[in-house]
Amino acid sequence: MRTSPDYGKVIEQIYKDLNQWERTGKVADYIPVLAEVDPNHYGISVQTLAGESFHIGDTKTTFSIQSISKVFTLALVFHHLGEDLWKSVGREPSGTPFNSLIQLESEQGIPRNPMINAGALVVTDRLLNYFQDPKEELLSFVRCVSNNPNVGYDERVAASELENSDRNRALAHFMKSYGNIHNEVDALMDAYCHQCSLKMNTEDLAKSFQVLVNHGTNPWTGNQLLTLSQAKRLGAVLMTCGFYDESGDFAFRVGMPGKSGVGGGVVAYIPNVLSIAVWSPALNPHGNSTLGIETLERFTTMIGDSVF
Amino acid sequence: MRTSPDYGKVIEQIYKDLNQWERTGKVADYIPVLAEVDPNHYGISVQTLAGESFHIGDTKTTFSIQSISKVFTLALVFHHLGEDLWKSVGREPSGTPFNSLIQLESEQGIPRNPMINAGALVVTDRLLNYFQDPKEELLSFVRCVSNNPNVGYDERVAASELENSDRNRALAHFMKSYGNIHNEVDALMDAYCHQCSLKMNTEDLAKSFQVLVNHGTNPWTGNQLLTLSQAKRLGAVLMTCGFYDESGDFAFRVGMPGKSGVGGGVVAYIPNVLSIAVWSPALNPHGNSTLGIETLERFTTMIGDSVF
Amino acid sequence: MRTSPDYGKVIEQIYKDLNQWERTGKVADYIPVLAEVDPNHYGISVQTLAGESFHIGDTKTTFSIQSISKVFTLALVFHHLGEDLWKSVGREPSGTPFNSLIQLESEQGIPRNPMINAGALVVTDRLLNYFQDPKEELLSFVRCVSNNPNVGYDERVAASELENSDRNRALAHFMKSYGNIHNEVDALMDAYCHQCSLKMNTEDLAKSFQVLVNHGTNPWTGNQLLTLSQAKRLGAVLMTCGFYDESGDFAFRVGMPGKSGVGGGVVAYIPNVLSIAVWSPALNPHGNSTLGIETLERFTTMIGDSVF
Amino acid sequence: MRTSPDYGKVIEQIYKDLNQWERTGKVADYIPVLAEVDPNHYGISVQTLAGESFHIGDTKTTFSIQSISKVFTLALVFHHLGEDLWKSVGREPSGTPFNSLIQLESEQGIPRNPMINAGALVVTDRLLNYFQDPKEELLSFVRCVSNNPNVGYDERVAASELENSDRNRALAHFMKSYGNIHNEVDALMDAYCHQCSLKMNTEDLAKSFQVLVNHGTNPWTGNQLLTLSQAKRLGAVLMTCGFYDESGDFAFRVGMPGKSGVGGGVVAYIPNVLSIAVWSPALNPHGNSTLGIETLERFTTMIGDSVF
Repeated sequence: MRTSPDYGKVIEQIYKDLNQWERTGKVADYIPVLAEVDPNHYGISVQTLAGESFHIGDTKTTFSIQSISKVFTLALVFHHLGEDLWKSVGREPSGTPFNSLIQLESEQGIPRNPMINAGALVVTDRLLNYFQDPKEELLSFVRCVSNNPNVGYDERVAASELENSDRNRALAHFMKSYGNIHNEVDALMDAYCHQCSLKMNTEDLAKSFQVLVNHGTNPWTGNQLLTLSQAKRLGAVLMTCGFYDESGDFAFRVGMPGKSGVGGGVVAYIPNVLSIAVWSPALNPHGNSTLGIETLERFTTMIGDSVF
Repeated sequence: MRTSPDYGKVIEQIYKDLNQWERTGKVADYIPVLAEVDPNHYGISVQTLAGESFHIGDTKTTFSIQSISKVFTLALVFHHLGEDLWKSVGREPSGTPFNSLIQLESEQGIPRNPMINAGALVVTDRLLNYFQDPKEELLSFVRCVSNNPNVGYDERVAASELENSDRNRALAHFMKSYGNIHNEVDALMDAYCHQCSLKMNTEDLAKSFQVLVNHGTNPWTGNQLLTLSQAKRLGAVLMTCGFYDESGDFAFRVGMPGKSGVGGGVVAYIPNVLSIAVWSPALNPHGNSTLGIETLERFTTMIGDSVF
Repeated sequence: MRTSPDYGKVIEQIYKDLNQWERTGKVADYIPVLAEVDPNHYGISVQTLAGESFHIGDTKTTFSIQSISKVFTLALVFHHLGEDLWKSVGREPSGTPFNSLIQLESEQGIPRNPMINAGALVVTDRLLNYFQDPKEELLSFVRCVSNNPNVGYDERVAASELENSDRNRALAHFMKSYGNIHNEVDALMDAYCHQCSLKMNTEDLAKSFQVLVNHGTNPWTGNQLLTLSQAKRLGAVLMTCGFYDESGDFAFRVGMPGKSGVGGGVVAYIPNVLSIAVWSPALNPHGNSTLGIETLERFTTMIGDSVF
Repeated sequence: MRTSPDYGKVIEQIYKDLNQWERTGKVADYIPVLAEVDPNHYGISVQTLAGESFHIGDTKTTFSIQSISKVFTLALVFHHLGEDLWKSVGREPSGTPFNSLIQLESEQGIPRNPMINAGALVVTDRLLNYFQDPKEELLSFVRCVSNNPNVGYDERVAASELENSDRNRALAHFMKSYGNIHNEVDALMDAYCHQCSLKMNTEDLAKSFQVLVNHGTNPWTGNQLLTLSQAKRLGAVLMTCGFYDESGDFAFRVGMPGKSGVGGGVVAYIPNVLSIAVWSPALNPHGNSTLGIETLERFTTMIGDSVF
């Protein structure tokens, strides 16, 4: 049996090497409040299922988790709706950018998967079906899985998202024309822009993915949120769809299921073993953190472990 | 620590339950020799890295492995060409059927991944660059990884493939117009149609994927064919692209990297643990074995293990 | 020099032959008020530049002109904006259905042409830039070219369109995300749904296209609304784009520039000679009047004249 | 009644103005023999149905007519096969470049129209069905309509085309996989590359389109090659599809049906009135002669006539 690598040393080495890199790519700038973020932030947090945690760099500073929130709404809705959810959203990689409308048309308003914006909007729409106060409900859920009662929305980001929501409104109206959005587009946008605005740091994110490392049971409470089979399915969706049209490349380089956000965060995990979160705001042309992906590739290479 | 499930009992149960199913889908019929195959064949073989093997049903009868051969040529070419290979072929899921030309055009003759026909043709073309006798070379490789010196080509199938190769010729000429095929299309077709015609049974296939279970080292010889990192990469390609436009669904249901062929074979594996091969010739509309996928979903569910 | 055919006899013959046909295709039913229309209505009006007019069937009953209104808004905006208009909308046939979003994405929010919904929305958006009361302005223009002060909006249709505008809202928000819609989507929808609701009969429609027959000068008033060159351009747009993804087929069969609407109206013309309007509400799968197109094909065949 | 403009003066003026232009765009260079052509050639020929002809510039020098030949094979096959032809090829603008494969796949091997390469290959394939010696037969036909027994193939160009035919072979094999090519791809390529190599000058080309000006009857012999209705249909196909994905723009600017070739030739016509051919080898990004289109736009503007 292999002994565990010294994860602390590994991330320290990676941090040392990569922090000197010039930040290539650019910070998300479709809303002003994201464009203000300093591209030089860089932090890495590892959380093992055995209970150890390792941190280096800016791991205490919160940032906008953006699309990483899609994992939380999906877990919450999957928990409530079960397999029925998959009648309204697929689980195939799209081969297209995150905000593309192209496949929606030939596929009659059923988004390819819940990790692209169209699919995430359907998932959030279902949250609105279930709960009086979906924003509050999601917040409780995220606080619970991240074991941090202080996680919150960034109202300034949410407001700014709402002002720049034409593309997502287009997706929502388009799917509504096929009957695949059930609620008012304004209400949906409010919930969706809030979920994108969730503020967390890498420590929170690494902790929050432990529920997947632990096959569906929240290690902080012992509650089973997803069955073993549901956890497998969620992992597969992250592996094949978590990085938009760069998902294959991420799997190829990194070999872990994961999710990124345009705020510069990336989280990934090895079931049974560990989760790791990285924050570096400069993005590559696919909208994924350049340094974040490099960090994770080096990590699985150095520890000699991945899901493959 | 978990004790190993009794794999023999698990596949026996699945076989018993599923063998009664009416075979839905239909046998590949684009060439006469495949259309003759009895849809009622059904066999399952499991091979563990620990050295145990379990078999039930038609596991001794050979069949045409078809696209599963793409894994062997890819491994062989990756071994020789290294990372350079990825300048000529991508590693993103295509979101389109196995023989589609659509993305090739917007992406300048670079196929999305080596598991669709276009990508596999590029890989085989590189085999022709390397070897005087690429067919002989591939055969040696497959005999070696499957630990069976009797594996061979089915010349009747190869001839029939060659007669029905217009679609693949279209792909080859199209990529040649972009400079991404280096050899004569006729020579390429001969090699490609032969690789598709390889005859193996589920026992051979389960054994032949042990090199991936074992992170790149052939357990039958002790030779390292791929580095740890290359084995990770190959696994990721199989996970995200191994089942054409059903790859996401396969990952979602089964949770293992794998590959199918229109001869009705499916192989998948859990690194470090086991490989499993199923044969059932009736195909779903995506060209993948209906019963094969169902078998594998039940298998990972019943053993409570997968890569996720 | 050819003597004019007896247009009255020609349309009488066609009416007699085709009125016996079973109405194939179906009435537009995306809004209830259109679904109520009797599919058996059938009327034909011919107006010559020489001043003669010929009518047979339901030529006094008004109906919803729907997309035919796109010609009026385009003429009005082209008159005011001139060639600048073509920076925001193309003039290529789209090869796709009227409400498709597909090309918008790869072409950065610039619609292929002003006859598909996306392009018509851009044109109407510019109307909102120009006029305080765009609905009133358009109404004046249409009354003027049709020489009928009684043309009006159908408020019931407009309201119903507005309730079923998700697809058009999607198009509008999508183009707004590229900066190609300047006004509020709600205001744009109000103007757009009103223009679609214009009520006219075939007599009005045949008259209203005389401005194009007459190369841009309104024969009812003597005012030049378009230059000779602009009239040529508008004719070309109608010829290549007037029938969505059936435009080539319409040109092929009929040989005249023209425009259809899902209310079952079709108008076409031969410059210098005549305009002809047909109404028959049952639509083919492309959303064009089945009998309308058949009538026009017979018409140009029988009179031995077309633009070709 | 309008008196005829002085066409000679009009083209002289245009020639004088445009010949000073720097040649923008570049000469076709996909085969060496075309790349050698001097971009400064410029010639204009007008032929009226009344029997007058006007020429200025390089109107005696022959050049490779390339895709203009598609009009001749189409006319010849349409004459023999009649409406049945349209079961194998459509008549809709494609909205895509001349050598695109994209729509072929979703439309099951039926090309959008006979003016893109895929459609022209189907038309030429049918020529092979009809004639022992299709190359000889086509040559007779072209000599007959151009009233010039010296028109011939350029064997050097044909050989060079054949060596660079991978893209067209891809199209042919692709359609053959759908059963829409009936002959051997090698034989088809030989015929197709020869038709593209036809050498003509602008005088020949202007004359050869008189059969369309004259509604299907060859004015040089008095023979009816196409019916009035077939001539209308051919005109419509040229109008909507003659300039690939620039067809709408050509109609918009010029207002005549026509056809271009990558050799730099463009021909267009006004039924009953005249045909006009221009040669200027520098091409725009759509593969159409930059100066050729500009010449034709000025021509219809200055004479105040077009089909619209």
